[in-house]
Amino acid sequence: MFCGPFSSYEEFLKELERFHGKKAPGGVLALHMVALAREHLPEGILVDVICETRKCLADAIQLLTPCTVGNHWMKIVDTGRFAAVFYDKQTGEGVRISLSMERLKECRAVNEWFLKLVPKKDQDLEAILDGINRAGGRLFDVCPVEVAPGLLEVRPKVPPVICPVCGEAYPPYHGPVCRGCQGVTESYYRELTVSGTKK
Amino acid sequence: MFCGPFSSYEEFLKELERFHGKKAPGGVLALHMVALAREHLPEGILVDVICETRKCLADAIQLLTPCTVGNHWMKIVDTGRFAAVFYDKQTGEGVRISLSMERLKECRAVNEWFLKLVPKKDQDLEAILDGINRAGGRLFDVCPVEVAPGLLEVRPKVPPVICPVCGEAYPPYHGPVCRGCQGVTESYYRELTVSGTKK
Repeated sequence: MFCGPFSSYEEFLKELERFHGKKAPGGVLALHMVALAREHLPEGILVDVICETRKCLADAIQLLTPCTVGNHWMKIVDTGRFAAVFYDKQTGEGVRISLSMERLKECRAVNEWFLKLVPKKDQDLEAILDGINRAGGRLFDVCPVEVAPGLLEVRPKVPPVICPVCGEAYPPYHGPVCRGCQGVTESYYRELTVSGTKK
Repeated sequence: MFCGPFSSYEEFLKELERFHGKKAPGGVLALHMVALAREHLPEGILVDVICETRKCLADAIQLLTPCTVGNHWMKIVDTGRFAAVFYDKQTGEGVRISLSMERLKECRAVNEWFLKLVPKKDQDLEAILDGINRAGGRLFDVCPVEVAPGLLEVRPKVPPVICPVCGEAYPPYHGPVCRGCQGVTESYYRELTVSGTKK
């Protein structure tokens, strides 16, 4: 059984719990998704991933592959679907693997968990994980895809520049001031004075 | 020395290299950033993080704290700055910690690395890491902040619905069809026929 860089399935589960915070069934689904991707891609290529959700799948992909958000080998395009594209970073060709709603119906415990048909307190985690591991790759649809050429572009590593507004460093290709000071990112905090009152 | 969940600094470096792909100096900077956040926040609270870059800092925060992209305890607001907000997930109060360009100047090897003043092949990784570890928390500015109230809202866990267009499951609050089929996410792939020609 494929376990990524872990010595056993149990080791993977332990690390999933430590990293993600719980033994999420979605993480175990991801194990089979990544195994399936490996079967469909040629050996010896460098693979990047686009994950379509910010949930457990994203964490499991980071654990099971060399791809993380911080090394840019995994990107998230949040369509909210349990799906990911695994592709050759040179050619852009690869496979999109998505959870099949049809196939899910054949695994009662897994279906009830995924579609939240049973309250969490009444779910049997072991039965769900067993169901996932018995069905494995059969739970997924696999579609050959080619990613958009823009995703293959490697941005040159250029020195950061200092933002004239906030005085912090940022990548020069973001513009004449940093994206935070441009206001193009979500405004997500406000400063408090030292006494805790609002500025 | 604070090492997050790792037994030693060396263990952290090893895990950083495995997870992120290299012993990135930014990961070691993150170690001191997280240690500083702990000093400024009360004990016993649940802390969420907003990371302002998709680079090594994001990976190191995922390794050093319980917060990951997949468990939603770490969010990324990509201003491109080496900064993060660590906040009490109940009250929204916390600290924004950012790399100080002024303080950086006092550490030659670190400054030359961060501002890419020296070609990578001429950089001395050990000197950079030593410089970071000697300066530690002094490299950062700390600002008390309050995060936007919207970030504290906990979305109810509702059953997914099936998208009438693609047939995949997605969160109902995304709209009547999934975000992929709405076209609100980046269009990042196209399907290939089995023979490899484009549809």
